[in-house]
Amino acid sequence: MKIGIIGANGYTGYELMRLLANHPRADVVYAGSRSMAGRKVPSLYPALSGVYDELRFESPNASVAAKKCDIVFTALPHGLSAEMGAELIKLGCKVIDLSADFRYDSIPLFEKTYEIAHPCPGLNEQKVYGLCELNRKKIVKSTKLVANPGCYPTASILALYPLLAEKVISPDGIIIDAKSGASGAGRKADEAFSYCESSSNFKAYAVTTHRHTSEIEEKLSAAALSPVALNFTPHLLPVKRGILATVYANLVPAAEKRIADVYKAFYEKEPFVKVNPEGEMPELKFVVGSNICRIGYKVDLRTKKVIIVSVIDNLIKGASGQAIQNMNIMYSLDERMGLPAVGNQL
Amino acid sequence: MKIGIIGANGYTGYELMRLLANHPRADVVYAGSRSMAGRKVPSLYPALSGVYDELRFESPNASVAAKKCDIVFTALPHGLSAEMGAELIKLGCKVIDLSADFRYDSIPLFEKTYEIAHPCPGLNEQKVYGLCELNRKKIVKSTKLVANPGCYPTASILALYPLLAEKVISPDGIIIDAKSGASGAGRKADEAFSYCESSSNFKAYAVTTHRHTSEIEEKLSAAALSPVALNFTPHLLPVKRGILATVYANLVPAAEKRIADVYKAFYEKEPFVKVNPEGEMPELKFVVGSNICRIGYKVDLRTKKVIIVSVIDNLIKGASGQAIQNMNIMYSLDERMGLPAVGNQL
Amino acid sequence: MKIGIIGANGYTGYELMRLLANHPRADVVYAGSRSMAGRKVPSLYPALSGVYDELRFESPNASVAAKKCDIVFTALPHGLSAEMGAELIKLGCKVIDLSADFRYDSIPLFEKTYEIAHPCPGLNEQKVYGLCELNRKKIVKSTKLVANPGCYPTASILALYPLLAEKVISPDGIIIDAKSGASGAGRKADEAFSYCESSSNFKAYAVTTHRHTSEIEEKLSAAALSPVALNFTPHLLPVKRGILATVYANLVPAAEKRIADVYKAFYEKEPFVKVNPEGEMPELKFVVGSNICRIGYKVDLRTKKVIIVSVIDNLIKGASGQAIQNMNIMYSLDERMGLPAVGNQL
Amino acid sequence: MKIGIIGANGYTGYELMRLLANHPRADVVYAGSRSMAGRKVPSLYPALSGVYDELRFESPNASVAAKKCDIVFTALPHGLSAEMGAELIKLGCKVIDLSADFRYDSIPLFEKTYEIAHPCPGLNEQKVYGLCELNRKKIVKSTKLVANPGCYPTASILALYPLLAEKVISPDGIIIDAKSGASGAGRKADEAFSYCESSSNFKAYAVTTHRHTSEIEEKLSAAALSPVALNFTPHLLPVKRGILATVYANLVPAAEKRIADVYKAFYEKEPFVKVNPEGEMPELKFVVGSNICRIGYKVDLRTKKVIIVSVIDNLIKGASGQAIQNMNIMYSLDERMGLPAVGNQL
Repeated sequence: MKIGIIGANGYTGYELMRLLANHPRADVVYAGSRSMAGRKVPSLYPALSGVYDELRFESPNASVAAKKCDIVFTALPHGLSAEMGAELIKLGCKVIDLSADFRYDSIPLFEKTYEIAHPCPGLNEQKVYGLCELNRKKIVKSTKLVANPGCYPTASILALYPLLAEKVISPDGIIIDAKSGASGAGRKADEAFSYCESSSNFKAYAVTTHRHTSEIEEKLSAAALSPVALNFTPHLLPVKRGILATVYANLVPAAEKRIADVYKAFYEKEPFVKVNPEGEMPELKFVVGSNICRIGYKVDLRTKKVIIVSVIDNLIKGASGQAIQNMNIMYSLDERMGLPAVGNQL
Repeated sequence: MKIGIIGANGYTGYELMRLLANHPRADVVYAGSRSMAGRKVPSLYPALSGVYDELRFESPNASVAAKKCDIVFTALPHGLSAEMGAELIKLGCKVIDLSADFRYDSIPLFEKTYEIAHPCPGLNEQKVYGLCELNRKKIVKSTKLVANPGCYPTASILALYPLLAEKVISPDGIIIDAKSGASGAGRKADEAFSYCESSSNFKAYAVTTHRHTSEIEEKLSAAALSPVALNFTPHLLPVKRGILATVYANLVPAAEKRIADVYKAFYEKEPFVKVNPEGEMPELKFVVGSNICRIGYKVDLRTKKVIIVSVIDNLIKGASGQAIQNMNIMYSLDERMGLPAVGNQL
Repeated sequence: MKIGIIGANGYTGYELMRLLANHPRADVVYAGSRSMAGRKVPSLYPALSGVYDELRFESPNASVAAKKCDIVFTALPHGLSAEMGAELIKLGCKVIDLSADFRYDSIPLFEKTYEIAHPCPGLNEQKVYGLCELNRKKIVKSTKLVANPGCYPTASILALYPLLAEKVISPDGIIIDAKSGASGAGRKADEAFSYCESSSNFKAYAVTTHRHTSEIEEKLSAAALSPVALNFTPHLLPVKRGILATVYANLVPAAEKRIADVYKAFYEKEPFVKVNPEGEMPELKFVVGSNICRIGYKVDLRTKKVIIVSVIDNLIKGASGQAIQNMNIMYSLDERMGLPAVGNQL
Repeated sequence: MKIGIIGANGYTGYELMRLLANHPRADVVYAGSRSMAGRKVPSLYPALSGVYDELRFESPNASVAAKKCDIVFTALPHGLSAEMGAELIKLGCKVIDLSADFRYDSIPLFEKTYEIAHPCPGLNEQKVYGLCELNRKKIVKSTKLVANPGCYPTASILALYPLLAEKVISPDGIIIDAKSGASGAGRKADEAFSYCESSSNFKAYAVTTHRHTSEIEEKLSAAALSPVALNFTPHLLPVKRGILATVYANLVPAAEKRIADVYKAFYEKEPFVKVNPEGEMPELKFVVGSNICRIGYKVDLRTKKVIIVSVIDNLIKGASGQAIQNMNIMYSLDERMGLPAVGNQL
């Protein structure tokens, strides 16, 4: 497969190139980036030298990309990404979009959250929301557009969806206290993300206002078959990679005994979602560097809650790895192809 | 004042020595440590050379300490700390105990939590729980024993006490999602706290079982005048110092408007507790290096909750700094004496 | 003393404000910053709230500053700093300049290194190079201008000056392999200094071309009474603060026995320079947070070299702390006033 | 191939398991560890769960290992490793030893350096020193024993060997100022390597006394055909992984023009050694996560030296990756098989 990446200079673009270097069936032939146009890829990312020595960033152009590529990963700012995606699809490309543009079923909810008019609501209806473990069957040969989920939503929805769908927990009172590494903010020159400002620090941000809240709520409402309004609080960890979400949910009476079975029914055969026995909480380092989501939980009968810990690598399962997983599904390849199944730990 | 520190080799002991080096009225004359007995203090802590060049650790002995000291900070493992404190008080010393031994009003709750019999329940009744801002008036010239609060309880109780006492929030459904730096675990050779295991990592631990839960609940139950059962989840941050607690509480209907006033009434004149205007969340680095607790909050009317962020330096306001603050109060000194009022930020 | 800081928004400006908050004789009354003009100081540096609540940044203006201040710390980019300093001195202020503008005795060497014409070469002759331990006696009541040394030069010159002056080491073949924390680059939005680019990384930079090379060489040539040409290689450490310089120098035959005595003669009575017994190498954490320079050394008779390790906090002894030390000397105060003498270690 | 690892609980053992999980021709069937015997591998290293779920550590036993394995990686403390290796070879296994036991050609030099008698000097003569790029041709089908080089020696020798062999630099006056991440010290409970002691810190250690000095000198003396005595100073970086060595060497007159060609002749076709154009210095993050050594250099005509920067991942090219590379060569496989060719960068 001939692969294009538009927005290739960002961290998700880098991660796509890095991971696809190990994919036996994929060949990155197009790297679109306005700001880096003309430069060789390794001049920005020296770790890629030796592998992408001849690849140059070029100014994003749908016609050029469509001619060269079977499938294009779009990773532009919201609004722009949908426009580029629409053009590419018209020109016959498949598109996996890593922006927020096609993540919502509800256009009004998207527009309220992102404060722009959706550039192509019609196209939005044809997308599949690419949370692979939930929507795998909807991604078929003829699928043209996959909306790759947000990083926080991936960790959060994988933890909560089964328990809501099976009525183990109440849709009310859910709290997601999430912590992410700095790469979640992307590649940019921003004083607030400088080493001196972020190292040895920790902070909550966007309290009650983070955009991923509505993405999570839309998907969980579908699971619960009733509206879910929850609290989502993101924090910035002094690490490069990884998301750990600590989730608090109210147990349906006596349902605590079904948790293990419900998770098992959903995830037992999944190569990239692993649920621990009760009480064994996964750590960030167990998944950083891999495409795996690990989930642990603990019941608190005193407060009638279950506390769930869900961890992913935000750039892999939370972005570029899941995008490749979606590509593999789309092309009926082994879903694991080119994707790391062992975290760094060390 | 002649000061003794027993358990001086640990991180709280170090921090006491470091801070007291700047205290104009205090002179550390006794450093008790079994494992380091005989060694000069700067041989373990070279940063203290030039200041404590002649001070040697000596094997802890109450009689020797009592002869040399007006006041002794005890920082031994629980159980041992109370025994040492009892001896010292008998010998006429004042004691500020940094262990958990005298933190509880309820002996059964202490014994259930720490799984030992309390060595001196009678003495426990004479202690003051040294959360300075709440109990300052109880600490008087004749006070012999102050129980220095735990680090997590300091951050948590300062955030919640006023709101519970003034019935702004419900005593039910409180969640404290707390994150601490690695120094909270103390000075020790433990693989799990090695640089390679902790750096670039993040994890929850002791989920539903951390001992500070009952300390927090006892003090907040007193504030609410009704039993508080809450969820407390500690996490280990890849930083040396600092605690950030993200607290979720259910608002009493229409009470959100009183939050600012309630905090103001409690803390306006406090030198070491600062409450931000709504929506301005403090970061860890604003307080690390200082004795200050900073509190921010945000109301979420959608979910009828208030989200509070409370930050302290776990070794200063959460341990040694607060202990010195208690000492200053005990001796009617300026409460701020020797205590840093500006965080490092950088 | 009424203190002004121009370039107050940068990290050295912040550090001056933070340290001066503990100085019993100094009062910061003027904070000049073009980019932050109009904003309150704590809005940029929340850790300073409670101490500088009423201080606002104002657009730098020499007349206004001179009216309010006895002494002004200038910390502007090179070229601009000299201009501002010249104006202030004309208006009767004392100036401690933290830029490179007045650090050189040789104007041509300055101009070659910084690639600008010196704005006020005449004034340059009146400055004292403020490496306190070497030039203390030259800083007197009538001194108007102190050029605060560079951070790398402070660590390097303190290590080498005595050994060169006393002919313990050869002026030839000196190598300074230096490593600095990220705050050395100052406060700025620069992708290369973002958390994701700097964390878990280490690199050499400006190899053979760093500007501090010529500053170090000029001062050491004066010590050796012969021209010193050396190799200086700076590296970027993934820490916020601190410089560790590993220095290699060729021993004059049989001179290794004099090292301890030579250092003793120079530094024995210094409050802020501490030399260890041979073989005991200081670590960065022993000095970070303090105004102290610690020096260790080891003789290698096999290769006829001495290896010296010199550590400082780049923002304190390497910048703002030394500036305050210079101020204290200028005003005949206790040199240690307001300056931290104990490193954080933890 | 059936693979055994003895000393499997350590970091190099972990890294072997992690890397071999991606090796298409290798199957880890034996994990020897005395301290962990009986435990499942993922109970110690949860990141390996899903891949090594059925593998248990077992108490090291040469007969059992030899029955199960074609080749065994031994990673025991020095002395013990040679004994185990000798037994395995007697039983018909191939051995790649990651300890220091077989790294030296000179038994007296080994014995002086490691202060033990060599347990099997005869076997030592049959080993190949597995610095792949220099000794590839000596590793053949019948090779039974490869001595995997030390981490610092790998980075240092790759940088210096060609220049010494081609007489570009003098064998006198070489200085290697090396910096390593904390994983170089291995997996252990040691206060000095705790997060609180190592984070935000930097230090030199074993100045003039590190054991790798003699390993480097022996190999470089062979390159120079004359004895090399150099200065090697290791430092501890606050990162998990990676070594950066800054090397200073005296140029042979006029030889600076040959540097590029000499490196090209040695490394142009190497998949895992990359030399940059002059002046482009590699950073640690470009190689961490990969089996690559990157080298940069800069000539300083002023001091007649060349400064070389050499970077590797200490656990991959500096240990487990190079061991696998040696295995691939031994079995005439593609040398790159199973080895990561792209650094993490991020």
